[in-house]
Amino acid sequence: MTDHDVIVVGGGPGGYIAAERLAEAGRRVLLAEPNALGGACLNVGCIPTKSLLNSAKLYRQALDSTTFGVSAEAVRYDWGQIQAWKDKTVQTLVSGVGAKLRRLKVEVAPQAARFVAPGVIELAGQRHQADHIIVATGSLPSMPPIPGVEGNPLVLDSTALLSVASPPQRLAVIGGGVIGVEFASLFADLGVQVEVIEMLDEILPFMDADVAAKLRRAMPKVQFHLKCRVEQVEGSSVVYTDASGQRVRVEADLVLMAVGRRPCLEGWGAELSGLELTSRGVTVDDTMRTNQPGVWAVGDITGRSLLAHAAYRMGEIAAALIIDPSSRERGQTMRWDTIPWAVYGHPEAAGVGLTERECVKRGLTVRCVTVPLTLSGRFVAEHGLSASGVVKLVAEPDSGLIRGLQMIGPYAPETIWGVAGVLENEFSVDDLKQVVFPHPTVSEGIREAVWAWRG
Amino acid sequence: MTDHDVIVVGGGPGGYIAAERLAEAGRRVLLAEPNALGGACLNVGCIPTKSLLNSAKLYRQALDSTTFGVSAEAVRYDWGQIQAWKDKTVQTLVSGVGAKLRRLKVEVAPQAARFVAPGVIELAGQRHQADHIIVATGSLPSMPPIPGVEGNPLVLDSTALLSVASPPQRLAVIGGGVIGVEFASLFADLGVQVEVIEMLDEILPFMDADVAAKLRRAMPKVQFHLKCRVEQVEGSSVVYTDASGQRVRVEADLVLMAVGRRPCLEGWGAELSGLELTSRGVTVDDTMRTNQPGVWAVGDITGRSLLAHAAYRMGEIAAALIIDPSSRERGQTMRWDTIPWAVYGHPEAAGVGLTERECVKRGLTVRCVTVPLTLSGRFVAEHGLSASGVVKLVAEPDSGLIRGLQMIGPYAPETIWGVAGVLENEFSVDDLKQVVFPHPTVSEGIREAVWAWRG
Repeated sequence: MTDHDVIVVGGGPGGYIAAERLAEAGRRVLLAEPNALGGACLNVGCIPTKSLLNSAKLYRQALDSTTFGVSAEAVRYDWGQIQAWKDKTVQTLVSGVGAKLRRLKVEVAPQAARFVAPGVIELAGQRHQADHIIVATGSLPSMPPIPGVEGNPLVLDSTALLSVASPPQRLAVIGGGVIGVEFASLFADLGVQVEVIEMLDEILPFMDADVAAKLRRAMPKVQFHLKCRVEQVEGSSVVYTDASGQRVRVEADLVLMAVGRRPCLEGWGAELSGLELTSRGVTVDDTMRTNQPGVWAVGDITGRSLLAHAAYRMGEIAAALIIDPSSRERGQTMRWDTIPWAVYGHPEAAGVGLTERECVKRGLTVRCVTVPLTLSGRFVAEHGLSASGVVKLVAEPDSGLIRGLQMIGPYAPETIWGVAGVLENEFSVDDLKQVVFPHPTVSEGIREAVWAWRG
Repeated sequence: MTDHDVIVVGGGPGGYIAAERLAEAGRRVLLAEPNALGGACLNVGCIPTKSLLNSAKLYRQALDSTTFGVSAEAVRYDWGQIQAWKDKTVQTLVSGVGAKLRRLKVEVAPQAARFVAPGVIELAGQRHQADHIIVATGSLPSMPPIPGVEGNPLVLDSTALLSVASPPQRLAVIGGGVIGVEFASLFADLGVQVEVIEMLDEILPFMDADVAAKLRRAMPKVQFHLKCRVEQVEGSSVVYTDASGQRVRVEADLVLMAVGRRPCLEGWGAELSGLELTSRGVTVDDTMRTNQPGVWAVGDITGRSLLAHAAYRMGEIAAALIIDPSSRERGQTMRWDTIPWAVYGHPEAAGVGLTERECVKRGLTVRCVTVPLTLSGRFVAEHGLSASGVVKLVAEPDSGLIRGLQMIGPYAPETIWGVAGVLENEFSVDDLKQVVFPHPTVSEGIREAVWAWRG
């Protein structure tokens, strides 16, 4: 059957955005998604965690606002209601994705699509071909082969922990990446005793270590164990070897396994697709093309970036190039270095561009400056002088070309997109000095970094 | 005496930034400020209001978070503590300005400087001349000649209301500009019955009326009276004539006069300065030059923009051109249309660039689109579908050149600077489509507007 111009395999951020953009341009699109629309991000990732983190923030603020003249008694959280609001948020947004696809006349098939041969898809027993196929099958939490993990009901992945019946009293988190840190922050704010065990020298390896260390130290309620290798899990206790070779046991009531996510290579006929596969996923170029003509891959399955907004951009690029191959010359190609990241813990953090470490690795000479957010009047008004917050700016000497920025502090995820724009424009420090930031905002921390930087 | 290269008259945002930039470049600077450093913004404007608004937000959230699973009893605010925190914030930041000026070896004179002749300043009985003089004397709240206002202790300006001994039960606000709206929001959140009387058709005249109306309707606790002319104040009651010519009386316990601010033309020898003066203040060109050679004016006294961050930019431009006159060619000139504004009420709002109305006035053809923030997953997670929030995008058809953006919703003041950067770059809608916004953020509302726009 060739009723469709494009078949999209998977309805997460990469897949559904591609379908939308193609349908808006008049293409007939079939999108196959056996589970809820929205993918991991909407159903078990970005959105439900942000809902829970917001509740945790409100709880903490209700407890801790006497400095600002606000007090309350009997401050409580109701985990059932927190879960209910989270579920309602997710359902609302999933419905929204479905409604938009329907409005755009995308045909949504609630089944798994499988390659049965290169370029040939089977769906509900029928074979389909199309000018273009977009693979967007996403990723799954990794479960490393640590003794005592497999089949252990007290070891949860992030998906399971999101909907746990009640918070544990003690939580052990294996892995200090963004998922581990966000859950650690969430449960610590709810009064859970949290310990994070990280194999590397520092948490959040996509940040410069000096910035990540500041974020770590700004979470005093969480106990972090760095350079520690988990040896086994016994029930809900985690045994690790620390940097000095000592074996240490963390007693907990529940264990979160948060060592990363792996591309979802099962269930869609990857092995029959003719696609070039690695352990990272489906190999693509910077325009989301695979080795198979007419077959594209976007989102987590490419292994290039496991962020929902990166998946959006990948989906948009694939759609743009399907609609008009010449649009590559108008910028429709992935610029991996201008994709921001965000951490929604307490405190928040965000960044975009190259870190200092990455610049060194690439042989780029850069000068960096780190300024405290206490230079921002709004930050001081809302948090005081003792609160943690910094901006680190990475730029090239002489030219002042801005290469990257990392920020810890409130609102960081909401303010960072402007720096993505700055990088897209190849702004120098002097250019950014001329941009007017509204006063008083925490975003002015960026401005302070720019003025403090010396080439 | 000519011990200094530059004399700065006034230590508010425009004055102190100019002094800092000049001192950093090695200039010997004398700054005269008879009151606390930081000007109206830091002492009686932006900063103390943001401190109070933050307390009001924490109070409201402690009361109203059951939807999100967080409850509390006996939620109270302590006005004395709210005031104490506000005062501490202001003192901290004022000290910070002083410390930085000292570190940069700016000579700060705690007296009023006065012109005694063009180019000649008297300070503490001594005459001073310098290659450059920067006038930065700021503005004061306007008190219009409405019967019953003068000498009435129940009619306060914003400065007095900031430090009122206790909140009134009922507050009448004359004027629906940014000051009136922020105070209305603040006191309404604290449970005060607030009525705002505005002469024009809509509040916040710097916004498009359709956007301002949405902000107004998003403040259901405040009663707004539009197209109403205040005739007199009797004690703490305000008598106005409404649009149909009816006389109406608002009974209140306190009246805030918030009809705007006027340039401060007294106390610094304006009449002897030889400067061209109008009712708006000191006349300047786009590089902050006055009619007198070597004399510059920055900030509110110019009447060009009464925003602290505009004053910063004016101060920086004056400093840059004093340091190197050729820097005008490198962008050191005011671009008035790229100065953002922000309103920190509940909800927040921000914008930058031209409104639709302003475009029409200038004869520019534009297309606009307004999208709800419920398209943002974070917004829905934190506020739900029934909350108010919009983004309005103004762009030129065909070229897609972005002319302006207005936004109502949480984090708007923190996210808007990116649009200032977009305007500085003369981005088109298609250019902005390629910028990656982190997900999930409320800033993605800007992205949604960009994709919804049709040229």
